[in-house]
Amino acid sequence: MHEFNTQRKIEFVDTDLGGIVHFSRYFVFMETAEHEFLNALGTSVVLEIEGRSIGWPRVSVSCDYRSPARFGDTLQIHLRVLRKGKSSMSYEIRFSCGDRDVARGRSTAVCCELAPGEKIKPIPIPAFIADRIEEAPKDA
Amino acid sequence: MHEFNTQRKIEFVDTDLGGIVHFSRYFVFMETAEHEFLNALGTSVVLEIEGRSIGWPRVSVSCDYRSPARFGDTLQIHLRVLRKGKSSMSYEIRFSCGDRDVARGRSTAVCCELAPGEKIKPIPIPAFIADRIEEAPKDA
Amino acid sequence: MHEFNTQRKIEFVDTDLGGIVHFSRYFVFMETAEHEFLNALGTSVVLEIEGRSIGWPRVSVSCDYRSPARFGDTLQIHLRVLRKGKSSMSYEIRFSCGDRDVARGRSTAVCCELAPGEKIKPIPIPAFIADRIEEAPKDA
Amino acid sequence: MHEFNTQRKIEFVDTDLGGIVHFSRYFVFMETAEHEFLNALGTSVVLEIEGRSIGWPRVSVSCDYRSPARFGDTLQIHLRVLRKGKSSMSYEIRFSCGDRDVARGRSTAVCCELAPGEKIKPIPIPAFIADRIEEAPKDA
Repeated sequence: MHEFNTQRKIEFVDTDLGGIVHFSRYFVFMETAEHEFLNALGTSVVLEIEGRSIGWPRVSVSCDYRSPARFGDTLQIHLRVLRKGKSSMSYEIRFSCGDRDVARGRSTAVCCELAPGEKIKPIPIPAFIADRIEEAPKDA
Repeated sequence: MHEFNTQRKIEFVDTDLGGIVHFSRYFVFMETAEHEFLNALGTSVVLEIEGRSIGWPRVSVSCDYRSPARFGDTLQIHLRVLRKGKSSMSYEIRFSCGDRDVARGRSTAVCCELAPGEKIKPIPIPAFIADRIEEAPKDA
Repeated sequence: MHEFNTQRKIEFVDTDLGGIVHFSRYFVFMETAEHEFLNALGTSVVLEIEGRSIGWPRVSVSCDYRSPARFGDTLQIHLRVLRKGKSSMSYEIRFSCGDRDVARGRSTAVCCELAPGEKIKPIPIPAFIADRIEEAPKDA
Repeated sequence: MHEFNTQRKIEFVDTDLGGIVHFSRYFVFMETAEHEFLNALGTSVVLEIEGRSIGWPRVSVSCDYRSPARFGDTLQIHLRVLRKGKSSMSYEIRFSCGDRDVARGRSTAVCCELAPGEKIKPIPIPAFIADRIEEAPKDA
């Protein structure tokens, strides 16, 4: 699987006094889209494997804003796998509303072992997850 | 100690498309005021005592809204201890802006032991905390 | 119409370091449920009538917490109309997860005319909305 | 002025179930630092000039995460002006905690005229603001 589509209706709390969606909210929308993608693969962003907790802390994110979204809009969200590394995953997430381009984000997360009180440690993406993910063709 | 004063400047992200502070944000302001009160008492909302994690899950909160607050306003926040129980604490928190009454909230939290994977268990408020807290005189 | 059912999947960002949904988030869930109820009635929380902006500022809210919700849980949300006044609406909103009672909130909002730069002014609920809303039978 | 320092104490609500500050919160911290910078210049992010509303919608933001921040940490925030354009401003914002590098963000906003019901229109940065801002020396 190398792409995933979902959507999200803008809530009142997503907006700010400018009357548009607050720019920080797109990162929440991205994160939830990534989690839905992992769910669609049959896994989760938070999981236990042989007693170890596995998570995906983010190392880098960005977003470009093209046009504002407003209360009540339904955003179409299109996620593509930009890169599958040994430990890391990079996604591009495009937001649109009807035929209007709204925003375009990127996110890189690293698969890590999380033990309480210990440093977060990068690990190879478990095979049962990595095997189900492919990089998207360039220039979709 | 039975009361505590703090303040908070309204941020852009606190507002919604109505141009005023989103009503849910007052609960965040209340929570942080409670934590500052605990800090002023020399303790914290998250602590370890003899290897046990102690926290204060909330059981009940409410807020009445009198007049709106806006971006850039500085809210005066006045916390009073309404009731100190064996395991629970109830606070009243009043928000004002200049001489304008903005909102009035109440919050009840219960002192609990939190062990990973176990049910949250109420415990008596540790003496070193309880000893420093008094109920505020009625009708301030 | 006197009741409305919806649901909501808990997102990562809804949680806090206690591993459970932050208590302030239930007020966002309530608000969105109220908006969905208004949508189901064929209206919206933000509307223009004859050039006037109509909104529903909240005057009072509360929530009791029974058991925690966690990342990935799907909350069942049941909204009931507690009271329909001349200008105000009061709702009760119950949150459950499977057969577990999670939280129970109340919210009162007042129908108001919102003109930029003017004071927010309560108005009677427009008939085309009021006519579609009934109070729920007591003790559901 | 080409740089600005501020700080911020991490609140409970800033954290997620991973026990660390949610990555989206850094964008809120950046925004508020930018607003404080504008305040320090004697202006505001929301202002009226000759009856026109002026705002700074964001066109692009990014953040790299180096090490996690936790509840109770006080983040040192260092803002630098990367670029002052005719209509746009780019900032770099570095977050640290003690001598630990926490995150590094960038943000570009465009000075715009905001009229209700009209399209957002970029305008030159008003001279009284532009005159007080300088680009930071490269490689601080």
